[in-house]
Amino acid sequence: MFRTIEWLDDGRVQFVDQTRLPLEVKYIATTSHERIADAIRAMEIRGAPAIGAAAGMGMALAALESNARTKDELLRHLERAATTLNTRPTAVNLTWATNRMLKAARGLDGTAGEITKALIDEAKEIAEEDVRMCRRIGQNALPLIKPGSTIQTICNAGSLATVHLGTVGAVVRMAHEKYGNIKVYAAETRPRQQGARLTVFEFMQDGIDTTLITDGMIGTVFREKRVDCCVVGADRILRTGHVTNKIGTYTMAIVAKHHRIPFYVAAPMSTIDMATRPEDVVIEERHPDEVRIINGQYVTVPTAKVYNPAFDITPPGLISAIITDRGVVRRPNEEKMKRLFDSSELGRAKPSSCD
Amino acid sequence: MFRTIEWLDDGRVQFVDQTRLPLEVKYIATTSHERIADAIRAMEIRGAPAIGAAAGMGMALAALESNARTKDELLRHLERAATTLNTRPTAVNLTWATNRMLKAARGLDGTAGEITKALIDEAKEIAEEDVRMCRRIGQNALPLIKPGSTIQTICNAGSLATVHLGTVGAVVRMAHEKYGNIKVYAAETRPRQQGARLTVFEFMQDGIDTTLITDGMIGTVFREKRVDCCVVGADRILRTGHVTNKIGTYTMAIVAKHHRIPFYVAAPMSTIDMATRPEDVVIEERHPDEVRIINGQYVTVPTAKVYNPAFDITPPGLISAIITDRGVVRRPNEEKMKRLFDSSELGRAKPSSCD
Repeated sequence: MFRTIEWLDDGRVQFVDQTRLPLEVKYIATTSHERIADAIRAMEIRGAPAIGAAAGMGMALAALESNARTKDELLRHLERAATTLNTRPTAVNLTWATNRMLKAARGLDGTAGEITKALIDEAKEIAEEDVRMCRRIGQNALPLIKPGSTIQTICNAGSLATVHLGTVGAVVRMAHEKYGNIKVYAAETRPRQQGARLTVFEFMQDGIDTTLITDGMIGTVFREKRVDCCVVGADRILRTGHVTNKIGTYTMAIVAKHHRIPFYVAAPMSTIDMATRPEDVVIEERHPDEVRIINGQYVTVPTAKVYNPAFDITPPGLISAIITDRGVVRRPNEEKMKRLFDSSELGRAKPSSCD
Repeated sequence: MFRTIEWLDDGRVQFVDQTRLPLEVKYIATTSHERIADAIRAMEIRGAPAIGAAAGMGMALAALESNARTKDELLRHLERAATTLNTRPTAVNLTWATNRMLKAARGLDGTAGEITKALIDEAKEIAEEDVRMCRRIGQNALPLIKPGSTIQTICNAGSLATVHLGTVGAVVRMAHEKYGNIKVYAAETRPRQQGARLTVFEFMQDGIDTTLITDGMIGTVFREKRVDCCVVGADRILRTGHVTNKIGTYTMAIVAKHHRIPFYVAAPMSTIDMATRPEDVVIEERHPDEVRIINGQYVTVPTAKVYNPAFDITPPGLISAIITDRGVVRRPNEEKMKRLFDSSELGRAKPSSCD
């Protein structure tokens, strides 16, 4: 199965260059933490969990690169590497991962070589935690997905935003692993077309039968019973069970309800926001050129007025179930969300998002 | 107001080169029927009614170009011109218009000059019939459109497919003419983006406040009460009140119903098909590259599997009213459609479509 980033046995870090997808699949393997920093800056690696894992591995590479003979020398080298790796100030997972690696190094005793070995394990653990989180989501979803199902997706909540599997990606892949006959309909997801560019690519890589449609086709796809359920990701899940996700999700949820097609949200516990009320969610409005320009060329009048909200809000009444790494909430409401949240340990959860 | 094609007072035919829209607005004026034939072949002029009008005017230009001294000489010249103009075998309006001009010429008496003058009037009449049809649709819609309304559209059922005004275009323009404060939200309409390319362009030309959105944004636009009603065109209206139109229309109708937003269909009587049952409608599936490629560049994996139905079917239960040039049918059903149809004279209607 397709892996966004991984630590190879020979001590290199390998990742897929996402700037070239889907037209070219180029894997890059490096022993240099500076190359990892460049990759994060140039968005060759993107998606919060993938960036976190890359930063952790970058710190481990830095330890390997150093000629440090003492723990103090190694720590000074790692502190410089952390500065180098923090190329994107708003990427919270980046700082979180470099801090976690520094803290681990400081807490370790032994030779520089022994500490380096432990840091490699810590970096792998950061990546594996993400994989396990996704796998738990996929596992929890299994009772909801029938053998032979065709699953409708929107945007990309797959491997490419995470280390491996993805959130919606895990639901699809683990059901496919179990039943062998899961298919996908991917909505292209204008304006940025993550469905067309990323979801189609990564499921095709894994040999999962995937059909691309435009966003307006969902009515026809549902009417013709081409899909059995929808599984979408979430940027944020509110205490009320409202789900903010990529623009187009709410439209899909309404049309799914009209056709009585189950509509599932798959997301990690770390996306649950118990503080904000739906009416207080501010929807980010993005630049009109995202809609006006595709692949560098205008598709409308260059001065056209555009409304370009990045996200929408789907109310719980349209959601059949929310699937998290801690369990499934069917017909979500405030009481059920609170029960799920209280049963978890979110104070210690790392920041994470699959979108 | 913007006019797709017209007969100028100086004896030239002027049209807008649609192959360059919306990035360049180039008007072409010509005295040559061969130039008109080239324009139809190269799709500088497109849309059934616009092609019909162009062919009529092309025949009138041919008459002006001829050095005929007798009616017989003129007729032979016109017969050659009709062959030249019939560059697109499937365009029924084209043959219909050249035949109508030939028939008129044969039925006329007088000098070649007198007949030519009458043919110019006939060509103008073909264009004016289309304008009148659109105007009647706009007139009939007026009671449904409140002052200050914002109208949601999909695809392009505007001037550019007709001679002037369009069908949905007439509804918007005549309400705007009356009230002065009509606004439009235009769905871009993937995969071919007629909303982004044509609707936005032509309403901007007329100074109508138009906002472009992607197709998946309609849920949010409706929830935020940004529009007051939807007005869409039709490729075909069945006796049951089912409407086939550009893919995405059905999705929009479901979401409009969910938000209790009136959903109107505006189309000429000539689109009504009393013979076909909804279950017998065959939806044309078009080439995957329409979805995969935008402006000559891939937006997904080049070998991606694609489902690309060109049209969808909206059932009458989602339609608030069908607005035709012969009257409005509210809450359409088979009985009401039959009454409307029987009250018209469709046996003599010319073939016409605004999509």
